[in-house]
Amino acid sequence: MASNRPQRIPVGADQCDPFQSVATELDLVEQTLLRAIGSREQTLTEIAAHLIDGGGKRIRPMVTLLAHFGLGGKGSQDIVDIATAIELIHTATLLHDDILDDAETRRGKVSAYRKYGLKSTLVTGDFLFIKAFEFAGKFNETVVQWTADACTLLTEGEILQGIFNRNRAVALDDYLEIVKRKTASLFQTGCKVGAYLAGAKPAIVDEADSYGLNLGIAFQMVDDVLDVVGHAALLGKPTGMDLRDGNPSLPIILALDDAVVRDAFEHSDADEGRIAEALEAIKRGPAIRKAKELSQTYAETALRSLKKLPASPHRNGLKTLVQLIIDRDF
Amino acid sequence: MASNRPQRIPVGADQCDPFQSVATELDLVEQTLLRAIGSREQTLTEIAAHLIDGGGKRIRPMVTLLAHFGLGGKGSQDIVDIATAIELIHTATLLHDDILDDAETRRGKVSAYRKYGLKSTLVTGDFLFIKAFEFAGKFNETVVQWTADACTLLTEGEILQGIFNRNRAVALDDYLEIVKRKTASLFQTGCKVGAYLAGAKPAIVDEADSYGLNLGIAFQMVDDVLDVVGHAALLGKPTGMDLRDGNPSLPIILALDDAVVRDAFEHSDADEGRIAEALEAIKRGPAIRKAKELSQTYAETALRSLKKLPASPHRNGLKTLVQLIIDRDF
Repeated sequence: MASNRPQRIPVGADQCDPFQSVATELDLVEQTLLRAIGSREQTLTEIAAHLIDGGGKRIRPMVTLLAHFGLGGKGSQDIVDIATAIELIHTATLLHDDILDDAETRRGKVSAYRKYGLKSTLVTGDFLFIKAFEFAGKFNETVVQWTADACTLLTEGEILQGIFNRNRAVALDDYLEIVKRKTASLFQTGCKVGAYLAGAKPAIVDEADSYGLNLGIAFQMVDDVLDVVGHAALLGKPTGMDLRDGNPSLPIILALDDAVVRDAFEHSDADEGRIAEALEAIKRGPAIRKAKELSQTYAETALRSLKKLPASPHRNGLKTLVQLIIDRDF
Repeated sequence: MASNRPQRIPVGADQCDPFQSVATELDLVEQTLLRAIGSREQTLTEIAAHLIDGGGKRIRPMVTLLAHFGLGGKGSQDIVDIATAIELIHTATLLHDDILDDAETRRGKVSAYRKYGLKSTLVTGDFLFIKAFEFAGKFNETVVQWTADACTLLTEGEILQGIFNRNRAVALDDYLEIVKRKTASLFQTGCKVGAYLAGAKPAIVDEADSYGLNLGIAFQMVDDVLDVVGHAALLGKPTGMDLRDGNPSLPIILALDDAVVRDAFEHSDADEGRIAEALEAIKRGPAIRKAKELSQTYAETALRSLKKLPASPHRNGLKTLVQLIIDRDF
């Protein structure tokens, strides 16, 4: 499953390809990512490359670029740099998340944590955060503040998720707050910064922000559904990980009235038999359907914001992206 | 041992007090630190405060302020902000270091890692890095780059130290490279940025840089000596930790020709009896004397750079600081 290229979600022949319209800049982001992770300490470069070369959909840089060009931005090193910074932040959090979740696999191969150990993986996560700020720190105070705020949200989301780990008290509102912070914040900030750097008016920047926020929420909801009903080979990791980790995912929360699910969610010592039973119970009940409906609702909210942006091929790309994210199977 | 105030090294009656001449700004740094660590997730604030309220000598912000005022800088929120950023970076690395070293104690109390666990401590370290960049990112490209470079050095130093962990091949040159990256870089960057923001000429900024670098090296050498000959109660942690952790400290490197020391350094399973014997062997031999001489040499190099700065009360403070750092017993 490992790949040296980003893993692109396939686009239908009748759809406006969101990848194609910013292909040049996405290539520049790839090059900038590889340059950014260069260090005289080979370990740092190797661990960063293990994750960055190992696929990844590059959706965060893509929405940043699409929002930028869709609002009249001209291609520049600046927009490539901030899109790179956002992907670096995402990658840093993945490295630290793998430590926090004791993850075995990531993007179809063994996780950096399992391959390189705690110390080197933790330090490489720090290194990537630093590189991100090296790029982001060159922008004006507004962009620096937004980027820092997104990062702060990521850490606050991690803490909140910890509070609701294996905690049956978790409600849909708690879930939404976690997802807004942990996942949607980088989508949101990418769109907002892309629009802002294009010189868009504040009201339009707000719509780009809202598109990113709602797309990000829909994205995480689909991720959560795929963790139950997806295929391990396509996902690049085993299914059922949220249940094993006690992670309050959307299908789990929506199925918490089922004693089998609740039991597997609450107990870290649930064996694979109980996990399998609980996954079957989630699939049998209405949780998956409800979760898909919710993701569709957020996708539609994203599309409503999109309609308020001026028509352009890039706006079409952002529209297609919503559908691709909803329909994806990895 | 815990304290709600920074732990100030005592100053002799005949010495120019480096703390006193920037006392107002150091107080502002304290206030800014406490404001910076505010989060709606109480865990982040509590863990950050555990370390920040728990002492710390604040030497990095102090040298930043002294270099600034000594070169004609006027008190401003800017210099307080960058001094705060540097202390936040230092604090972030302490939290992550405690995870990497599995440290039981820090600054005279139980380490955050032991008290709050891996997940929350790791995330709080990230949070502090982010807060640091929120402050540092508001400066111009030069300051952002220097700050990011210092942080990159910290991670590269961590990796290099890992390579020489329990590794008898470690030489004095390797040690100096580790120390320049892991400890001296923040002293160096603080002095450099302080001088630069005061509007000093490049040649003078370089002297401030050199002062910080050499002071930082001397500081770490003294730290290493104290780990062998210091008093646990004063240090706020047990002595002999470098040997237990297999950390290539200066006295250990200088005593590696002693089989007892080498054996304890190389083996992670060395029991307390062997550690005690090895510590005694280090104390008996010439390593401590040689290490003190080396720290003195770097201190003198720092003083030579200092002589090239214009005379001022703040320069006197920086001079006193060199002596305090060499003579300190915690």
